[in-house]
Amino acid sequence: MYLRAIAFLHRKGRQYVSSSDLARQLHLKSPQIRKDFSYFGAFGVKGTGYHVETLIARIRRILKLESRQKAALVGAGKLGKALAEYPGFDVYGFDIAAIYDVSPDKIGKRIGSVKVQDVAGLAGLRDSDIRLAILAVPAHAAQRVADSLVGAGIRGILNLAPCYLAVPKRVKVITIDIAMELGILPYYV
Amino acid sequence: MYLRAIAFLHRKGRQYVSSSDLARQLHLKSPQIRKDFSYFGAFGVKGTGYHVETLIARIRRILKLESRQKAALVGAGKLGKALAEYPGFDVYGFDIAAIYDVSPDKIGKRIGSVKVQDVAGLAGLRDSDIRLAILAVPAHAAQRVADSLVGAGIRGILNLAPCYLAVPKRVKVITIDIAMELGILPYYV
Repeated sequence: MYLRAIAFLHRKGRQYVSSSDLARQLHLKSPQIRKDFSYFGAFGVKGTGYHVETLIARIRRILKLESRQKAALVGAGKLGKALAEYPGFDVYGFDIAAIYDVSPDKIGKRIGSVKVQDVAGLAGLRDSDIRLAILAVPAHAAQRVADSLVGAGIRGILNLAPCYLAVPKRVKVITIDIAMELGILPYYV
Repeated sequence: MYLRAIAFLHRKGRQYVSSSDLARQLHLKSPQIRKDFSYFGAFGVKGTGYHVETLIARIRRILKLESRQKAALVGAGKLGKALAEYPGFDVYGFDIAAIYDVSPDKIGKRIGSVKVQDVAGLAGLRDSDIRLAILAVPAHAAQRVADSLVGAGIRGILNLAPCYLAVPKRVKVITIDIAMELGILPYYV
């Protein structure tokens, strides 16, 4: 959250940010932010605040985002295509370096500069330097694809299929279920 | 999470589910699930489990999802279009009943059966029965659109723009930042 907020200010040309500025934006308390930033080894200057570029560099290092990272995308349907072309991944230094789909209509076509490959060739990821994958396939296919990804040496999966994935402990899965999040809203309204 | 998991079983034709089944799927402990379900007023039968349709009905009622709900979508770019046609919203009983965009290329065109309207006419939502909105616009436009939505009587916003939104307390915002979630993965890998 800090990286996102500070990267946003950086793009707007801001050089310094105060903890109270960030507190307002992030709905946090500024002592909490100062405490977190001191854990990060970043110290602000009274009246000036924190140097934006230094903060970004420190948070990137903590998150292991110092060098650009490659990710594979599985599923080149509507959501997958939208993700493949999503400019927001750049903030975190991600490149979608490989795209896989099951449909003969899609295999061989390009999305941006990346050619869509047959999902049957997922095992080939093992010979690449790709260790992260985005899963944008229907729920009924998600576990099978996840198994193949794990078999191909993938260590982290961002899962957009609305289901849980069973994976070995060494593999980290983050699930985003957009429909479920919308489903929560009426409760609060 | 319960609704999603149980709706998934229901689509696969399951009539009953045990707490231990769900515990495995959801990485929870079965006593926790039994406790939650008893709060919901649902009681399982030993050896048989919980009746899937009854559970779905009870959870829907708690989440105020008994009747179908309408939502507006603002932003008919790649992500917005993918969301407009996303079948997953149906599980929670949502219909995308209005779509808005700023681009003359998109205004007047149809996505599925819904015609894209000019975002300048967002205030018209006040005269509709739509109280929920999905925001799929670029970060720099998100706060402005959120202000218009609040002005039009929207009470819940699912925000897919990578930024925080300042809204009055009566309005609930849930933000999904897909790129940030991917950005978290390398830390664990």
